[in-house]
Amino acid sequence: MLEKLKEEVWKANLLLPQYQLITFTWGNVSGIDRSAGLVVIKPSGVEYETMGVEDMVVCDLEGNLVEGHYKPSSDLKTHLELYKSFANIGGVVHTHSQNATAWCQAGKAIPALGTTHGDYFYGAIPCTRPMNEAEILSEYELNTGKVIAETFRTHHLDPDQIPGVLVQSHGPFTWGTTPFEAVHNAVVLEELAEMAFKTQLINHEVHAMQQDLLDKHYLRKHGAGAYYGQK
Amino acid sequence: MLEKLKEEVWKANLLLPQYQLITFTWGNVSGIDRSAGLVVIKPSGVEYETMGVEDMVVCDLEGNLVEGHYKPSSDLKTHLELYKSFANIGGVVHTHSQNATAWCQAGKAIPALGTTHGDYFYGAIPCTRPMNEAEILSEYELNTGKVIAETFRTHHLDPDQIPGVLVQSHGPFTWGTTPFEAVHNAVVLEELAEMAFKTQLINHEVHAMQQDLLDKHYLRKHGAGAYYGQK
Amino acid sequence: MLEKLKEEVWKANLLLPQYQLITFTWGNVSGIDRSAGLVVIKPSGVEYETMGVEDMVVCDLEGNLVEGHYKPSSDLKTHLELYKSFANIGGVVHTHSQNATAWCQAGKAIPALGTTHGDYFYGAIPCTRPMNEAEILSEYELNTGKVIAETFRTHHLDPDQIPGVLVQSHGPFTWGTTPFEAVHNAVVLEELAEMAFKTQLINHEVHAMQQDLLDKHYLRKHGAGAYYGQK
Amino acid sequence: MLEKLKEEVWKANLLLPQYQLITFTWGNVSGIDRSAGLVVIKPSGVEYETMGVEDMVVCDLEGNLVEGHYKPSSDLKTHLELYKSFANIGGVVHTHSQNATAWCQAGKAIPALGTTHGDYFYGAIPCTRPMNEAEILSEYELNTGKVIAETFRTHHLDPDQIPGVLVQSHGPFTWGTTPFEAVHNAVVLEELAEMAFKTQLINHEVHAMQQDLLDKHYLRKHGAGAYYGQK
Repeated sequence: MLEKLKEEVWKANLLLPQYQLITFTWGNVSGIDRSAGLVVIKPSGVEYETMGVEDMVVCDLEGNLVEGHYKPSSDLKTHLELYKSFANIGGVVHTHSQNATAWCQAGKAIPALGTTHGDYFYGAIPCTRPMNEAEILSEYELNTGKVIAETFRTHHLDPDQIPGVLVQSHGPFTWGTTPFEAVHNAVVLEELAEMAFKTQLINHEVHAMQQDLLDKHYLRKHGAGAYYGQK
Repeated sequence: MLEKLKEEVWKANLLLPQYQLITFTWGNVSGIDRSAGLVVIKPSGVEYETMGVEDMVVCDLEGNLVEGHYKPSSDLKTHLELYKSFANIGGVVHTHSQNATAWCQAGKAIPALGTTHGDYFYGAIPCTRPMNEAEILSEYELNTGKVIAETFRTHHLDPDQIPGVLVQSHGPFTWGTTPFEAVHNAVVLEELAEMAFKTQLINHEVHAMQQDLLDKHYLRKHGAGAYYGQK
Repeated sequence: MLEKLKEEVWKANLLLPQYQLITFTWGNVSGIDRSAGLVVIKPSGVEYETMGVEDMVVCDLEGNLVEGHYKPSSDLKTHLELYKSFANIGGVVHTHSQNATAWCQAGKAIPALGTTHGDYFYGAIPCTRPMNEAEILSEYELNTGKVIAETFRTHHLDPDQIPGVLVQSHGPFTWGTTPFEAVHNAVVLEELAEMAFKTQLINHEVHAMQQDLLDKHYLRKHGAGAYYGQK
Repeated sequence: MLEKLKEEVWKANLLLPQYQLITFTWGNVSGIDRSAGLVVIKPSGVEYETMGVEDMVVCDLEGNLVEGHYKPSSDLKTHLELYKSFANIGGVVHTHSQNATAWCQAGKAIPALGTTHGDYFYGAIPCTRPMNEAEILSEYELNTGKVIAETFRTHHLDPDQIPGVLVQSHGPFTWGTTPFEAVHNAVVLEELAEMAFKTQLINHEVHAMQQDLLDKHYLRKHGAGAYYGQK
């Protein structure tokens, strides 16, 4: 079942080590078939070197195993919560990539400091609030997803325009309309995190770029007036 | 038409990922045939892995498409403005390379801190002023070029002696007498940006090297008295 | 003798350059057969490129050569002291990896700043006190091991839960139930050291993650209630 | 003539890009035959990719060309001055490696912060004073060598125990008993420079390691009492 999505999710997972976003098994990609109400995700703790397309796990949106000989990624419930909260997304990625994770550990949002950022993220990339004891002790992975959704709701952020988040003291999640786009955004986030890290060390006073420039760059690649690329 | 220049521009573009100056399609190289009044440039948003010499785009100096089955790079008008403003240059490169972009985002010029810098850039590498609302809203890419030219004019800088610039909140542009030399200078700029970043973290008080030493190094590689290399 | 352990130790040593944990011969891995009371370790100063399984050195727990045509690693006595002090460990790794060594040189413990840390180390990774003149002048390598053991004893740390240490002004040691697990922990430590380095530069005020979150992540991978992976 | 030395110098030069110590042609290695009074050095500005053993240049100690179809490295006179000043050295390396050059630009010596340093350099790696106008304007490369020698003389440093120097606002030079050992020391210096850079950012208060520990590590690898390795 879902052979095409399984292959897409499998290939998208293999991109994580290729783009040097992960060490060992510290990351996972999933994809959703919204009409079937099913999600395909990487199995938990299985090594990338030997993982085949047949090892992908299929679950329903409550996290029940539908197909597969492995347990799904332990982050499954975070992925599911994101699919439920963000109606337009088709793929989710979680990594512990060096620079994005440093920002998560620092508990700071990544400000929109330049057009590299503005080409993909329409504003600062938010960092979630710390999770409280109750959220950690019970249904931790589900609550991680809920806190991400809360962050977007509370700050009136559009997940289609800001396709990623920094989970405090943890690591980044990104998403996109497809698993490949979600990986693409994970690569971009890691680049932005490193650039912002260096920018602030060069200029401690730096602040976000002007709104006009952010609008210009985001909108020349996204939406009705886009003119970047070949469409 | 312009088969030799197209091949040169295509090969120069392929050097960008090879020298790790770009992620995805975040960069472009162009070259000019001044006698024909034509510019060859990378197509917009096309991936480096699959791009062939036949995908290069030929435009005139007003930006009209002369040959090619793709749209030219969205940064075309910035390139054209540089060719118009800087009479001796034959190639232009734009990237979002990590360290040079961090300086752009910090809004700071890269001071001439050592002989590695002085071997290629005869003084600080300037950072442009922020663009204003009018410049961003209308003819943004053209105005980016104009602001670069203004920076050199206002500060009495010679683009033949300082073959690169940091566009504030954006990324670096470099140039040279040929597309390959422009790429060479992009590699050098990225190295210098990283060295200067680290230098300032080791010594917050650091200032530019002595003028005599800058003269010595720049002039032993450039101009009538040069004695570096095999000429 | 001990052919299986020798092969394991040899392969584990070859992982050090593969994971970019060492320059030249700046590292070594050992493994113990506790029933035989024998340790297999890398020979001293032999290059990784040409080292074969037959070059591994077998010693008893007093450091006497039992088999091998080379002298054992000069750090042998530190390894032996760790095997004597920490009853459950089966492999030990020493490197001078960039970021972990920087923390050693800084004389600072690496605080548990995020879940990447908590997935492997159940609390801060300690830094030993400076060694005194007497400890350095006589039986230096043995005393290095003793100071490590003292650090864990004094601070009531469990070496099974914190499988690594920063030796002040020197470099990191890690361990595990097998030589491969010890190498795995060396890779993790280097990642954590780099993340913590960057985190503190982004936020000078940062402090350790909440205890609940540390418990959650450590215990979902370790101990009776673990649910990460396929067991 | 000197076929064996030419091959050694050629191979040692090829190690510079392999160890990522240089960009383009920003470095050179030489070796000396003291009985013949001749030095073999890389040609100036020739690319590493295509350079063959037959391209090596032979000069006498006054810098006269003795054999070769290329001009010698423009840094030749610095190398010659080092051979004249430091009686025991057999090879010299110059690079603009990232981290060592950042320390040169910062104008700071690299303190002996840990045993990685102490294994190779018996104390801080000095930074030369700024060169004055007269030294720069006439016989610049020769004077660079003289200022290096002055640095060692003035601070009573032994070039056999501290096989490298940071030339202020320029880049590092290292040496050794052979060209290969000089390259080895260049690799070590670059590692130490990066470690020290990071160490000082983790702990702004850090100072040099205790003298006893420096003695221990330097002397267990060097001199009559050495016991590291297989001799």
